[in-house]
Amino acid sequence: MKDRTASQGQVPGSLILIGEQKMDHPVIRLIEYDAEELVEKELKSIDEAIPCIESEKVSWINIYGLHDLQLIERVGEIFGLHPLFLEDFMNTDQRPGYVEGEAYNALILKMLRYDEGAKNITSEQFTLVLGSHYVLTLQEQPGDVFSPVRERIRMKKRRIRLNDNDYLAYVLLDTIVDNYMIVIESIGRQIEELEGKLFGDQDKKVVEEIYRLKTELSFLRKSVRPVKEIMFQIMKSDRSFFREKHRSYLSDLNDLVTQATDAIELYSGMISDHLNIYSTNVNNRINSVMKVLTIFASIFIPLTFIAGIYGMNFRYMPELEFRYGYLVFWIVVAGIAIGLLIYFRRKRWL
Amino acid sequence: MKDRTASQGQVPGSLILIGEQKMDHPVIRLIEYDAEELVEKELKSIDEAIPCIESEKVSWINIYGLHDLQLIERVGEIFGLHPLFLEDFMNTDQRPGYVEGEAYNALILKMLRYDEGAKNITSEQFTLVLGSHYVLTLQEQPGDVFSPVRERIRMKKRRIRLNDNDYLAYVLLDTIVDNYMIVIESIGRQIEELEGKLFGDQDKKVVEEIYRLKTELSFLRKSVRPVKEIMFQIMKSDRSFFREKHRSYLSDLNDLVTQATDAIELYSGMISDHLNIYSTNVNNRINSVMKVLTIFASIFIPLTFIAGIYGMNFRYMPELEFRYGYLVFWIVVAGIAIGLLIYFRRKRWL
Amino acid sequence: MKDRTASQGQVPGSLILIGEQKMDHPVIRLIEYDAEELVEKELKSIDEAIPCIESEKVSWINIYGLHDLQLIERVGEIFGLHPLFLEDFMNTDQRPGYVEGEAYNALILKMLRYDEGAKNITSEQFTLVLGSHYVLTLQEQPGDVFSPVRERIRMKKRRIRLNDNDYLAYVLLDTIVDNYMIVIESIGRQIEELEGKLFGDQDKKVVEEIYRLKTELSFLRKSVRPVKEIMFQIMKSDRSFFREKHRSYLSDLNDLVTQATDAIELYSGMISDHLNIYSTNVNNRINSVMKVLTIFASIFIPLTFIAGIYGMNFRYMPELEFRYGYLVFWIVVAGIAIGLLIYFRRKRWL
Amino acid sequence: MKDRTASQGQVPGSLILIGEQKMDHPVIRLIEYDAEELVEKELKSIDEAIPCIESEKVSWINIYGLHDLQLIERVGEIFGLHPLFLEDFMNTDQRPGYVEGEAYNALILKMLRYDEGAKNITSEQFTLVLGSHYVLTLQEQPGDVFSPVRERIRMKKRRIRLNDNDYLAYVLLDTIVDNYMIVIESIGRQIEELEGKLFGDQDKKVVEEIYRLKTELSFLRKSVRPVKEIMFQIMKSDRSFFREKHRSYLSDLNDLVTQATDAIELYSGMISDHLNIYSTNVNNRINSVMKVLTIFASIFIPLTFIAGIYGMNFRYMPELEFRYGYLVFWIVVAGIAIGLLIYFRRKRWL
Amino acid sequence: MKDRTASQGQVPGSLILIGEQKMDHPVIRLIEYDAEELVEKELKSIDEAIPCIESEKVSWINIYGLHDLQLIERVGEIFGLHPLFLEDFMNTDQRPGYVEGEAYNALILKMLRYDEGAKNITSEQFTLVLGSHYVLTLQEQPGDVFSPVRERIRMKKRRIRLNDNDYLAYVLLDTIVDNYMIVIESIGRQIEELEGKLFGDQDKKVVEEIYRLKTELSFLRKSVRPVKEIMFQIMKSDRSFFREKHRSYLSDLNDLVTQATDAIELYSGMISDHLNIYSTNVNNRINSVMKVLTIFASIFIPLTFIAGIYGMNFRYMPELEFRYGYLVFWIVVAGIAIGLLIYFRRKRWL
Repeated sequence: MKDRTASQGQVPGSLILIGEQKMDHPVIRLIEYDAEELVEKELKSIDEAIPCIESEKVSWINIYGLHDLQLIERVGEIFGLHPLFLEDFMNTDQRPGYVEGEAYNALILKMLRYDEGAKNITSEQFTLVLGSHYVLTLQEQPGDVFSPVRERIRMKKRRIRLNDNDYLAYVLLDTIVDNYMIVIESIGRQIEELEGKLFGDQDKKVVEEIYRLKTELSFLRKSVRPVKEIMFQIMKSDRSFFREKHRSYLSDLNDLVTQATDAIELYSGMISDHLNIYSTNVNNRINSVMKVLTIFASIFIPLTFIAGIYGMNFRYMPELEFRYGYLVFWIVVAGIAIGLLIYFRRKRWL
Repeated sequence: MKDRTASQGQVPGSLILIGEQKMDHPVIRLIEYDAEELVEKELKSIDEAIPCIESEKVSWINIYGLHDLQLIERVGEIFGLHPLFLEDFMNTDQRPGYVEGEAYNALILKMLRYDEGAKNITSEQFTLVLGSHYVLTLQEQPGDVFSPVRERIRMKKRRIRLNDNDYLAYVLLDTIVDNYMIVIESIGRQIEELEGKLFGDQDKKVVEEIYRLKTELSFLRKSVRPVKEIMFQIMKSDRSFFREKHRSYLSDLNDLVTQATDAIELYSGMISDHLNIYSTNVNNRINSVMKVLTIFASIFIPLTFIAGIYGMNFRYMPELEFRYGYLVFWIVVAGIAIGLLIYFRRKRWL
Repeated sequence: MKDRTASQGQVPGSLILIGEQKMDHPVIRLIEYDAEELVEKELKSIDEAIPCIESEKVSWINIYGLHDLQLIERVGEIFGLHPLFLEDFMNTDQRPGYVEGEAYNALILKMLRYDEGAKNITSEQFTLVLGSHYVLTLQEQPGDVFSPVRERIRMKKRRIRLNDNDYLAYVLLDTIVDNYMIVIESIGRQIEELEGKLFGDQDKKVVEEIYRLKTELSFLRKSVRPVKEIMFQIMKSDRSFFREKHRSYLSDLNDLVTQATDAIELYSGMISDHLNIYSTNVNNRINSVMKVLTIFASIFIPLTFIAGIYGMNFRYMPELEFRYGYLVFWIVVAGIAIGLLIYFRRKRWL
Repeated sequence: MKDRTASQGQVPGSLILIGEQKMDHPVIRLIEYDAEELVEKELKSIDEAIPCIESEKVSWINIYGLHDLQLIERVGEIFGLHPLFLEDFMNTDQRPGYVEGEAYNALILKMLRYDEGAKNITSEQFTLVLGSHYVLTLQEQPGDVFSPVRERIRMKKRRIRLNDNDYLAYVLLDTIVDNYMIVIESIGRQIEELEGKLFGDQDKKVVEEIYRLKTELSFLRKSVRPVKEIMFQIMKSDRSFFREKHRSYLSDLNDLVTQATDAIELYSGMISDHLNIYSTNVNNRINSVMKVLTIFASIFIPLTFIAGIYGMNFRYMPELEFRYGYLVFWIVVAGIAIGLLIYFRRKRWL
Repeated sequence: MKDRTASQGQVPGSLILIGEQKMDHPVIRLIEYDAEELVEKELKSIDEAIPCIESEKVSWINIYGLHDLQLIERVGEIFGLHPLFLEDFMNTDQRPGYVEGEAYNALILKMLRYDEGAKNITSEQFTLVLGSHYVLTLQEQPGDVFSPVRERIRMKKRRIRLNDNDYLAYVLLDTIVDNYMIVIESIGRQIEELEGKLFGDQDKKVVEEIYRLKTELSFLRKSVRPVKEIMFQIMKSDRSFFREKHRSYLSDLNDLVTQATDAIELYSGMISDHLNIYSTNVNNRINSVMKVLTIFASIFIPLTFIAGIYGMNFRYMPELEFRYGYLVFWIVVAGIAIGLLIYFRRKRWL
């Protein structure tokens, strides 16, 4: 949870980094290419990227690190970004959204990663600005999730080299949404693994596991669901920089996002079912524990009473003097015990 | 759960088979017919099917097995399929979907089969491509589900022989959706059979059964619900290869799909109700077990205490010397027991 | 549950009776009328009805029994019904639906009847075909639900005699939907009667009753909800045979159907609430049973232990020799008992 | 629950009073006014109201009592009401609805009153017919809910005197919907009062209270929700007698109805939450009762066993002869008791 | 809960303050500015604000306190507010809403504040009227929530000084909605803190905490959800005083409101999950308490019975005379105890 108090009352559009600051030093990387040529370099200053805006070549400017306010302000000036949008993507708790400026389209998304060891999902804000020929991306931390994309760009004659910048944007978005599916499926696998434990040892860990998975699915829903709206906005927009001829890619991406949200709903439903099933099983357990107790207690408490009677020290107790008293006692005890066992058997408790 | 990691970062539209590989050797079958003539043969190579694309006759090309990447790539070239669509139907975990290409419509569906023995549903991906005069179908495994359709084609003068390829497509889709109904109704029958057990022996198996049915319904919903969207897309499309004059068939198919999704929702609701009812019954059980325990314990524990008193060895205990002490003891015991029985009777525990 | 397997792979539109066969011998009745004249007769063959199709008089042809396939096929030919629609209404498990043919409108509905004795709902498929001047109805079984309608037709100068065939159709549909309300209200009455039992004897029958009512409401929803869609389709259609001037009747019918579906949802919500309330009450019960047990056990088990102590046979037990030992014992016992009673009183268990 | 059987099969539009008959003698009151003049009288016969229909003055005709069928039929003739609509408002179980006739708009609503003493809601059907210059209202019973409106009419120069009949209709509807809010808020107050009891004495009354409130909210929803649809229909209609210049009053009324339905949903959610909370609390109770029982039983049952051992009469029991036997017994007993207390303390049961 | 009875039957649009009266003395503050000049003063009478309405400068008139009816009536006259709208904003329980008058747009919202100490949310009604060049705001109580806005106005060359009155309105609304986020996130933080307690000590406080959070979320939903509708109405309106060029600010505000409502739904879902999890945990607890009881009771009750037998005083009991009787007794006791322990171990209760 971030602390919004800091931003409150500030002029809207003023730049503050809301959320934790995650790294030391921003890194700016530029890849500029067309079908023939490829230039790849690390920029000292964002000003070096100015020529790319006008150039006919496709250029991909990637910036790691959002904490350098001067850098971000300068980015805003160079690419003509709206101050409100700048403020939004500086806020790392921002809800995913889509903005259409005059000279650009911009998306804010969450990049998700599932840490198998720590069994939790880490989230990072990802901003993509699509201009006439450039793609500008901003990440919180450097990561290697896009390195296969870079590999493909480096190879000549690949489809990515023959296409425009909106195809590059599509490839990047596809990579991110593919990552959603990986995270969701890893949750799905854990839900399926839970199945065995539901009917098994009934250790209390199961509830904690269910709780953890529920919380993660809530988190996923919060990150992924707005992306569906975004896809819808892009597809119906007529000012979008996604070219008409690449529509089928967008619609494919849209299908993938739909699949992701469907899967999240499916797993949410399943995990709720799991909790209900588990809860009913706990009650079943209580029931069988109770039966054991009731059988033992109902048989032996009356018998103990009878034994207690003949342990009394009344002066006049005729049975005690009776020769076969002890034998009769045993017969009565056995009779009661057998009778109760039959009774419980009939009730199907045994 | 498939492992998407393999495809991640690959150029979208590159071909990889995601999901298990289910058979050894692809089989290509061609049936070409019009009202008069019928040709049926197994093709060595998909290239033999090229003439069918232009021919005025209806041709049905059926391919079993998706693992032969060269074959699939060649299919893509011959029929002019979009690379993204090729990628989709190679992914056997693909969500059902509908694509309109320039020269074809394509559907990806799930074929469902209920294995009565193993009591589980098996699913197989089914792709149908509808061109101007051909129908191309791709299945994961050879199966005999379409053999009645083939029989009908072989008979002259049947409606299927007099109609165009979209009627064939309709018949194939109808067969698949009919199969959905069979699977759903088999689930429905099991839910109804469960009814007896809900109020009966309360064996723990019931929860496992409910769990299994819930999971299967989730699976069914995932497969069938997107088909409704697909039907909607086809019906509102004006670029569809389903001819206007056959609209009533489509609308009939749509009704069947609606019936299927309605039934799934109905059964999902019912199985949830079953769990609630069962759970309440378990609590009722606990309640009656508790009553038995309480009645036994509440009657005999105080009596045992009284017996215990007169088993004490205090030197001075006047009652012990009293002539009718033992008799009075029994009167008191009977009085307490009867009093408590009346009390429990009043509380309607007996 | 019907067995769809029979129809699978058959050419769509081929006639098979799906569902149980409910009677022996089909009966065809014809009532033909205008403001002045009335003819009422039983037809030997459906061919006798052919003149009605063209006649300007209103004619109502009612057929009982759907198992005579030749008859149905002939009906299809005479009235020009689409083969798919024929197939649909032969399937007695068909979802209610509406079809607009060129020369007719057709509705498939369920007729519901509540059997007060057996406490269950029986359902029968009802098909209504509305042509230019005729109304054709098909029922599974002969029944007297429409006899008041027949009575009104027989009386001269009644509104029904002065109006067209769509008014007759409206009257028939109104009768059927009125029947829905009767069934729903009978369920409603049972739900209200359940209220007393919820807080009363807690007999296990209540859960079975709730289960039965839930199942019946599911069944009702399945039958009635599609009728709302049908009304919507008829009202928005511009090819409908329901005349514009009778629209207010349709809209009245629509209101009644809305009232029916609202009532079903209301009662479904109430019966779910009932189950929750009952379930909470069961837990309350368990709680009070537990309290009784705990009070008895917690008081008498320690006392029994004390009595047990002085029943021991140790050679050296000074208290036993003490003159007022027994008296002190009773004082201690009473002290413990009173102390515990006060404790439980404070906890408000008493 | 009314008995619809009576009306079944009757010609639609025939008049029968469905529902209980609530009073003896219908009363017709007329108030006729414009900015200058005011006439107020009780009419002997509805025929006296005929001149009002044409008059330019605003006239409000209020009829109490719906059981006089001749009166109602005459009302229908005079005001030109559709027979179906007459039938509807005679049925006191009618769902609230809106009808647009050629010369009138008509609304059927429920008037709700909360009886603080009996703690239940009473409902009465209210029908309002708005013509060109008249407002006709029909109530089941005479009541004083509109007397403040009458007061205002009697005072010269009030806004109501300066406005048309649709403003009068608005004022009447506003009064009725204000009453809804009063009823809803009284339910709301009871829900809030329940809060204290949820965590308190756990008397079983709470469940009955929750049940009562749930049932009342269901009833409210049934009465109020259709009013929202009605407002929507009036506002979008272009044949409505509500003048364009008074639209802001309608939209204000609409806001009030929305507030009412929102409040009903809010309270329904809250009362369901209350039941869940209460139910969890009951389980908490069971848990703490169980702990008390378990602690007492687990400590004293083993000790009683030990005491039982040394109460045995075996000839050879060395401990009994041992000088410090009794002392050792007490040490062992204290040890066990303290050990178990520490154990339960660790488990946080104490 | 306010008492609406007071307003009932009053002429709609008559002014009564519904809700508690929160302060003594109304305060009117005026800030008038353009890029160059700034005037800030406290007004004695609202009549001093009349020139502002026509002036080209931006003027912000802020009124604290709604109880001075003459003042409010005068405000209504001066700014030409509709009487119904005046009545609405006097009612401090009014649902948030949006009104478009001829010369103004008006919003009624709730200002929320979270009191960290008392752990509850306080709500205050806020009304904003946007005219051609003025912004009129009405608050129930003086507060410092807008002081940062005032600070920014005072500083020259800030964006707020260069923009029109609709930008001021946007800044004020943004401040209020930012406050919603702060309140929601404070609830969110408490929900997350609850997590530890769910699996921990199981103190009954947790249910009360869950209940409190649930109630607060209901309250929040009631306040925030209508704001989304308001934003939608403003954005689609073509009579709005929010200038087209500031649309991006509105759409940003809309995103923030969407984020707020999403967060409320997310947290509502989470807190319901918490209750389910807690409830299952309580059952788990009951289960383990039951196991402890059952193990103790099942082992020692039979043993006590055996000890009871040999405490009996029958004259003829051969075992008592047997030399190794006591030894055998211990062997049997140990055997039973060990047997039962193994049994419970197998059942995994130990």
